[in-house]
Amino acid sequence: MQEKQVINNNPIGIFDSGLGGLTVMSSISKLMSKENIIYFGDTAHVPYGTKSKETVTRFAIKISKFLIKNNVKIIVVACNTASAFSLDFLKRNMQVPVIGVIKAGAHEAIEQTKNKRIGIIGTQGTIKSYAYVKEIKKYDSKIKCFLQACPLFVPLVEEGWVENKNKKKIVEDIANIYLKNLIRRNIDALILGCTHYPLLKQTIQKVIGNKIKIVDSATAVAHEVKKVLEEKNLLNDKEGNKKYKFCVSDDPQKFETIGNRFVGKKIKISATKVEID
Amino acid sequence: MQEKQVINNNPIGIFDSGLGGLTVMSSISKLMSKENIIYFGDTAHVPYGTKSKETVTRFAIKISKFLIKNNVKIIVVACNTASAFSLDFLKRNMQVPVIGVIKAGAHEAIEQTKNKRIGIIGTQGTIKSYAYVKEIKKYDSKIKCFLQACPLFVPLVEEGWVENKNKKKIVEDIANIYLKNLIRRNIDALILGCTHYPLLKQTIQKVIGNKIKIVDSATAVAHEVKKVLEEKNLLNDKEGNKKYKFCVSDDPQKFETIGNRFVGKKIKISATKVEID
Repeated sequence: MQEKQVINNNPIGIFDSGLGGLTVMSSISKLMSKENIIYFGDTAHVPYGTKSKETVTRFAIKISKFLIKNNVKIIVVACNTASAFSLDFLKRNMQVPVIGVIKAGAHEAIEQTKNKRIGIIGTQGTIKSYAYVKEIKKYDSKIKCFLQACPLFVPLVEEGWVENKNKKKIVEDIANIYLKNLIRRNIDALILGCTHYPLLKQTIQKVIGNKIKIVDSATAVAHEVKKVLEEKNLLNDKEGNKKYKFCVSDDPQKFETIGNRFVGKKIKISATKVEID
Repeated sequence: MQEKQVINNNPIGIFDSGLGGLTVMSSISKLMSKENIIYFGDTAHVPYGTKSKETVTRFAIKISKFLIKNNVKIIVVACNTASAFSLDFLKRNMQVPVIGVIKAGAHEAIEQTKNKRIGIIGTQGTIKSYAYVKEIKKYDSKIKCFLQACPLFVPLVEEGWVENKNKKKIVEDIANIYLKNLIRRNIDALILGCTHYPLLKQTIQKVIGNKIKIVDSATAVAHEVKKVLEEKNLLNDKEGNKKYKFCVSDDPQKFETIGNRFVGKKIKISATKVEID
């Protein structure tokens, strides 16, 4: 009799400062359709992008402990700032594998660039941390990186101006202000270093033109998660009702309303508030 | 011998979710130049405007207790969201007088309006709380209020786009989108219901025209603080070096850099990080 493959239907744990990580969740659920997922959005402390390493790491530890209590088999740090600031600490201190968005995005960009000039956009925290640059330089020190923080992008996405006909022009004007210096630097790949930014992908592509490839970390990290789970024989192959659980640290209402824009129509978000302080 | 007037050189305590309350501090220090002040910016949790009543109140209680430990003689809630959500609770539970920005701003607007049509702009939290409307209706139920949340204003101020020649046009376009419905409603007074907004005053005045009076809560609340301290004989009349102390819950650097824009050149901000969790 063939030995039954070890399966594990414990959930994948994903966390972010708020909504943005839902783009990562969406990619993971598409790639691994049988997986159970528990998502934590730290909406009481959002945004992380303007906060310090110490403070963000304090939040990240509390959330990771909460996820482990909930029996996750892997933790995905679906937030660029938390990945930049806290991934090393979490990897050393948590008893399950911990994956961040930055490594995956950086490696995808290295594959995409031909002229070895990569642009990186993100929140102030991610940009100041140089996390993408460090990751890229580890593999190819000749690649040149050009950085730009875009603090207005997150509120633009959350306001829903991106999809609004009358406001599209302003969104493009703002994107143009942020991106024109990067275009001048002759980059041929641009990393969206913030999980909110995939919702601005069309606008950004319009502004930078078709010659520059956009690298979206959400898809890249989903592939890395699959690889790690395969290696450890932890992929769920059980057919049946997969479960998605959403937890937040503040009022779930706003998270649910805006969140549905991030995950598409197939997933219906219903979130529970939990206390982690 | 004439009895010496009771004086009190204990500090005035002011708090906000971050930087915005510095406009209130600036008004207070101008009106009462002898007062010592301790300012707390909750930069680890900023912004409050998108968070729930329960969460904001939890933060406000911790900060108020910290200020009382530091011997403040009065607490000024220099944050519209925290005033809207937490003022009643703090008034009942703190052993010193607690003053919020909303009452002062609302009453100033009542004095200014002639056609009894008032516009109110602020963060989502402040607008959804209806705090200004409730305060206004208490005194004159015939006044009509028109509300608009402006979530992009705070990042625009913090990005410094307001003062930037090349970006002024976009700031005006955004202000126009938010304000055009209020203008149509024929308001003759507009309350800046967020402590960041005084830095946008010129832009807003340009967009709404000179017929609509702008009501800035910062000045109004300073007068209320003075009145309360006078009534309780708690004004400081001691000449000498007044002390300004700035505390934050996250890395002080950003607070110091941007903060100096809020308080003018006379005050030099040097902040200390304190733990209140």
